[in-house]
This record gives sequence, C-alpha cells and structure tokens, in this order.
Amino acid sequence: MVPEARAAGPAASYPDATASDPAKLGWMVGSPPPADRTLRFDDGSYFQFPAMRWSVSNFRQLMPTVNVSRGLGAPVPLPRALRTDIDAVRFTPIGASAPMTWAESLAANYTDGIVVLHRGRIVYERYAGVLKADGQHGAMSVTKSVTGTLGAMLVAEGRLDPARRVADYVPELAASAFGNATVRQVLDMTTGLQYSEDYADPKAEVWAYSQAGSPLPKPKDYTGPRSYYEYLQTVQPQGQHGEAFAYKTVNSDVLGWVISRVTGRSVAELLSERIWQRLGAEQDAYMTVDSIGTPFAGGGLNTGLRDLARFGEMLRNNGRFRGQQILPKAVVDDIRGGGDKAAFAKAGYELLQGWSYRDMWWVTHNDHGAFMARGVHGQRIYVDPKAEMVIARYASHPVASNAANDPTTLPAFEALARHLMSKPR
Amino acid sequence: MVPEARAAGPAASYPDATASDPAKLGWMVGSPPPADRTLRFDDGSYFQFPAMRWSVSNFRQLMPTVNVSRGLGAPVPLPRALRTDIDAVRFTPIGASAPMTWAESLAANYTDGIVVLHRGRIVYERYAGVLKADGQHGAMSVTKSVTGTLGAMLVAEGRLDPARRVADYVPELAASAFGNATVRQVLDMTTGLQYSEDYADPKAEVWAYSQAGSPLPKPKDYTGPRSYYEYLQTVQPQGQHGEAFAYKTVNSDVLGWVISRVTGRSVAELLSERIWQRLGAEQDAYMTVDSIGTPFAGGGLNTGLRDLARFGEMLRNNGRFRGQQILPKAVVDDIRGGGDKAAFAKAGYELLQGWSYRDMWWVTHNDHGAFMARGVHGQRIYVDPKAEMVIARYASHPVASNAANDPTTLPAFEALARHLMSKPR
Repeated sequence: MVPEARAAGPAASYPDATASDPAKLGWMVGSPPPADRTLRFDDGSYFQFPAMRWSVSNFRQLMPTVNVSRGLGAPVPLPRALRTDIDAVRFTPIGASAPMTWAESLAANYTDGIVVLHRGRIVYERYAGVLKADGQHGAMSVTKSVTGTLGAMLVAEGRLDPARRVADYVPELAASAFGNATVRQVLDMTTGLQYSEDYADPKAEVWAYSQAGSPLPKPKDYTGPRSYYEYLQTVQPQGQHGEAFAYKTVNSDVLGWVISRVTGRSVAELLSERIWQRLGAEQDAYMTVDSIGTPFAGGGLNTGLRDLARFGEMLRNNGRFRGQQILPKAVVDDIRGGGDKAAFAKAGYELLQGWSYRDMWWVTHNDHGAFMARGVHGQRIYVDPKAEMVIARYASHPVASNAANDPTTLPAFEALARHLMSKPR
Repeated sequence: MVPEARAAGPAASYPDATASDPAKLGWMVGSPPPADRTLRFDDGSYFQFPAMRWSVSNFRQLMPTVNVSRGLGAPVPLPRALRTDIDAVRFTPIGASAPMTWAESLAANYTDGIVVLHRGRIVYERYAGVLKADGQHGAMSVTKSVTGTLGAMLVAEGRLDPARRVADYVPELAASAFGNATVRQVLDMTTGLQYSEDYADPKAEVWAYSQAGSPLPKPKDYTGPRSYYEYLQTVQPQGQHGEAFAYKTVNSDVLGWVISRVTGRSVAELLSERIWQRLGAEQDAYMTVDSIGTPFAGGGLNTGLRDLARFGEMLRNNGRFRGQQILPKAVVDDIRGGGDKAAFAKAGYELLQGWSYRDMWWVTHNDHGAFMARGVHGQRIYVDPKAEMVIARYASHPVASNAANDPTTLPAFEALARHLMSKPR
C-alpha cells in the first residue's frame, strides 16, 4: 500500500486505460490462468502495473483480511435518478489549454468505478475493468479518513480527549515519537516523525513498516518488528509536533491503536458496529490485517463502491442517514472546519494550495466547503455540501501519487458540482 | 485442513467444551492480544487445540480467500418457530449405556453453532464460543458435498458426462492417476490413488498436498508443486478405479478443476451464481485459495450457519427453494439414491455400515432416507427427508475424525428426527 506523495514523480510512459484494462488482459482467468497472467502475492507481481489494476479489486485473494459486517438486515438501495448529461460536462485540466469532457476524464484517471450522488440520488454510475457493483475495491488511504472519522466520533462523544498525549492511551508508545504527541496532532498529522514514505528511497522507513505489517513469514535472520504495533513503538522524533502537516501513514495506525484501546474494539469491529451496520450497506467491507490480526487502519479498507458513496452521503448530511443520526453532527462540523492552513502549507502541495487536513480528511476550503478522502492511485470520496453532491471513485492509476491525477480530477469534480447546481433535476 | 478418517485415533485427553471455550480463553483479543493468546498462520499455532476453536471461525484472518457473493438483494429470513422441548430430547450414544440429552450433546461435540429446521422453519438455534449468527465458520469437508452438488448439477444439465474420462475434460491430468478415471468415479471417490491422508504418517501424501496448496511462500530449495493443480497432476495410481470407496480430498479438487473447465468459472464463482445468490442468503460465503487463486474445492468453504442450513433446506425440497427450482430435482434424486454400497463397505467405516457415498455426499440409507455432508472436527449438514428436518452444525471437536463425534452425533440427530415427527407443531 503506497502513500500519498506531494508531487508527481518523473513523467513515465504507461499504457492507457484501454490498453491496460485488466478485464481485457485477463489476469487470473482460467484454470489455471496462463503463466504470464498469474499474479502471486509473495513475489510482488500482483502490484506491478498493469497487473495491479486487477489486484486493487481482489486484495482478499492475495492476503488475509477481516470482515466489516454490514449486519444481516436488508440493504437499503440508494435512490436512482440517472442523468445522461454528465458525460458531456467539460472542464479544463490543471495546466492544460484544451478542455476535456467528464467522460474522457474517466479513462484519463484509470477509473475502475465512479458513483455520483446528487441530493442523495445516484445520478451517475460507471464500472470498468474487473470492478463490478457487487465487488470490493481497495480504498487505499481513503481508509485514513474512515479511521479519522471514527477518532473524531470518539472525540465528539467525549471518549477520547484530543488534548491528551498518545502515551496516556497507549503506554507502549511512550518512548516513541508518538508518546508526547497529542491525539489532535495525530488526527491532523502534525506530528514530527523520522519517517519517510518516499518509495524512491530504498532506505525510507516505509519499507521497514511494510515488512513489519506484512502477513508473510519473516526471513530467518529477521530481528525487526513483526506487527504494525511493534513497528510503531520504534518511530523516532524529528522536529516538533504541531508545527507542520506531514502526511505519514503511521499516524493513522497509531490512531487505530488508540481507538482500539479506548473502545476495546478493532477498527474493523468498530466500523461495523457504529457505521457499516447502520448505512443499509449492500455489502460487507473488509480490511487487510497483519500477522497478528490488526487491521491496517492506514490503508487496508476495501468496500463496494456504492457503500463508499453511502458513507460520504452520511457525512454530507451531517452524520444523519436513513432517519438516524449515525455520527454526531459535531464530527462533520469539525472536519468541515478544517485544520491548520499554515501547517498544511508547509508541506508544499503545489496543487492543494489553501487546503488543510483535519481528522484525516483533506479540506479544500473552497467556496463549496468541499472535503475529500484521498487514496493513492486515484481513490476518492468527494463531499461538496453546497452542491449537495458526493462522488465516490475507485481507480488504478499507474502513478501512486494523486498529484498525477489531480489535474484531471479536481477541476472535473468542481465542474460537475457547478453543472448539477445549475441544472438540478 | 484435515481429512475425514475411518476411525477415531487413539484416545487422548482434551479439555472439555467449557474449558476450551475460545471466547473465554480470549484468543486474539486486545490491541495487541497477549503473547500467549496471539495466533499466527505461518507458525501453525492457529490450528493447535484449543486455539483452533478460534481459528475455525476466523480463517479469513489467517489466509487469503475469495468471496462467494450473496448478491446485492435483500436476504430472505428463514421463518422461525423456536421450540423449547428439544434440549430435553434423549438418546443413547453409540457404545454407551447411559442416555444423554440433546443439550448435553452440544458440549460433547464441541458445538460452535447448530441450527435445526423443521418443515422449513428454524425450531432450534444455538451459538457458542466465538461463532455468532453474523459470523462465518469453516465448513471443512462439507465443502466437498457442495462441490459434488455443483458437479451433479452439471451432470443433470448435460454439461458434464459422468461416463467420460477426467482427461477428456482436463488434459493436464492425462498422465496422472485421474487421467483414466471417469467423472463418476471422481464424484463417488472410487478412484484408485496412491494418496494417503493419514496425518499420523509424516510421509503421507497429504503433507505434500498441503504444502502445494498453501498460500505461504515456498522454501528456497523447494522444487515441488506450487498449486493444487500442479499437485493433482502428480498423483499416481494404486489399485483399480471403481472398486472401492476411498475418501481422498484430491478427488474433490479434481472435480473442482473439471467444473472450472466446463463452466469457465471457479467453484466460488459458480457457487455464487448458481446457488448462493438464489438462496436469499444472509451473508456472503468465502473460500480459501492457493497462491494462484484457486479455491480449495475439497475443504475451503466458510459460511454463515443459517446459510448452510438454507443450502440443506433447498436440497430437502428437491432443489426448490423460495418458489424457484434452484437445482434440478434429478440432482437430489441422484444423491438420495446413493452410491455403491459394496464399494463403500470396503472402506471399513465401523460406524457407517450400510451407508454409501454419492456425489460427495454420505448417504445413510436409513428408513428416513437421510443424507449428510461431513467435515472434520464435527461439521455437518444432515438432511432427513422423511422427518422434514435439516440440521446444520459447525463444531471444533479436538479430534479431526468424525468417528470421534459420531457416537454422540448420529443417534442424537435420529432421536431429534423421531421427536419432531411424533410431536410436530
């Protein structure tokens, strides 16, 4: 699971969405699949492009997972009011001179599936490649926003004090960089950590973190940490907490640990009990786990696309959905209010100027009050309160960093919001 | 996944159901769980008794799996007419002099969950340990009966010719013992194979099969088969096909391979499309997979308990359920008609005299026409057409072989059938 990066890497040439279509390429089809279409977890072949376009819809076939139960009741279908005018919506990609249509943006972003809700109704829904309405796709770092939402929920309920130190909740972290960070600093990722997620650097800490969290057996001479929790205790400080936003997955897993200590539930269990069972979800979700069963709170969630849209719609409605207050309104107020803009600016995201990060959500501070969950390779939840619009998107863009698809994503979402506001149905 | 054996092994002393209750022992509870309550897949700790009592309800947290989708529609709850008189039903265990009550049999059999349907209504339902109504449990070799049912379905539909040789469908198996066996011999496990499932014998072929099918990385010097399919091609003949019943898991995986070739679907996909999506199932099921994504057709199915009962109820109704003919009646006729009793007798099951094996079902040939799916450690589907009764049971008996629990299982099921017939409600 690859993290968000601040800017796109060096330009590389990849086959386009059609040429890399995982359904056409036929990964893992056949009994057995052909050797050059067989993907294995342990040799890493599953996550090379374009094979990863299959894998992001099939993580559970590659690694152990834990269920996020929807419960046993009837799903509550989202109302449908499909529109045919959306494909023609035009926008100009950031940095481009020629406009692009919404329909064209789907392929540009290697979209695997996208659902648009307007005023709570599905107005647009598309699937491509191997993702279907009854499948599940990796949410990648959108998981962080879900974990952050659970954290904000516990804060709103008074069960978690954002001003307290992490070590007060998880004493095992006292000697780590997290020990004297506040829960708020973790929620907003303003901790000062010696931890690099630069995948281009073979010495980056993210590699050791990945190995610690991998469910695969360790080499015989391995002496490092053997779980997410063991790794988190080794993170060293760098700089001061609270000064700058620094997007690091380990914060989300520390939050997951705090949440589990406070509630006696794993993140997967809490997500099921408090949210998934109350959304009328169509499908169980699931989370990948490490070798001792800890859900990957920083990136392990997989869901059906419509269910991801349901989650966003619940937030758009200030936590209220299907006549129930699922989350306190204060949670959404806190997310929408955003985080420290000055701290965010220090992180230097060229395309996200004026934004902030709060409760593990990306807050645009645009005039629609939009906020966003972002996962590498193009995963998104986009909530636009003013336009009464929610977009859930799963994708498998060849470049991990969302900086690579933001130019054809952000203006597209904004253009669609304006279109729906100007032509409501 | 441990196979059925013909007789119980040497008597051993195990903690009883209460002392080994996985909920009380607290496996995998806590963040992290205590070291002596942490179960890992790669060191085998997960399948030692009593830890395996947790694992059988949590296989997906230990290994990769593939979904068996229930679809996106509303579950159709089974009607409920719970009875309070069942716990007091008495029977005499085989080989015992003193009677036992039904309620006592639950603990004797290390029952994790049991559902009894009478005339299609739930009359009895119990869960113990860590299994809940919204959980999934390993069906173990009950999987074989599900795979066999799919095979019998394809036979009834004329898509699979039981008289043809396996190699006609899967040429890769031509040089193996399966090559000149008929599909019928595979369906009824009368193939002559050099393949031992004696877990007490370290040279038994089952160990090599387990290693081939394991999703874990192979040792560096490993040169053997790396998937179920690769292993199946190595099985050598022993004796003649068609002469004797010999219960060997590899037959089920060969059948799974044949099914996949004929239909272009994995067993998991076909099970979803043809059955699970049409049962009004409450939950998705799942199957464990090998390192190239092949579902374990011989033992990898995991389901909710009520859904397993639904499957049995559909068979009791001759393939008809919820107003739909889900399977041709000919499938159930063929199972109920049973297999070759003389061939079965040669296998020497002391407690199952007069039985036969057909389409991977155990047929009692008793005066109720009962037939049964059996999985190690106590898994069962029991269909009693005359009593209009279906029992689905998940268990975690310390002894793999069902010979260890048949004495407190078979007479209990028969006594309950008589009770329900004599006192219908």
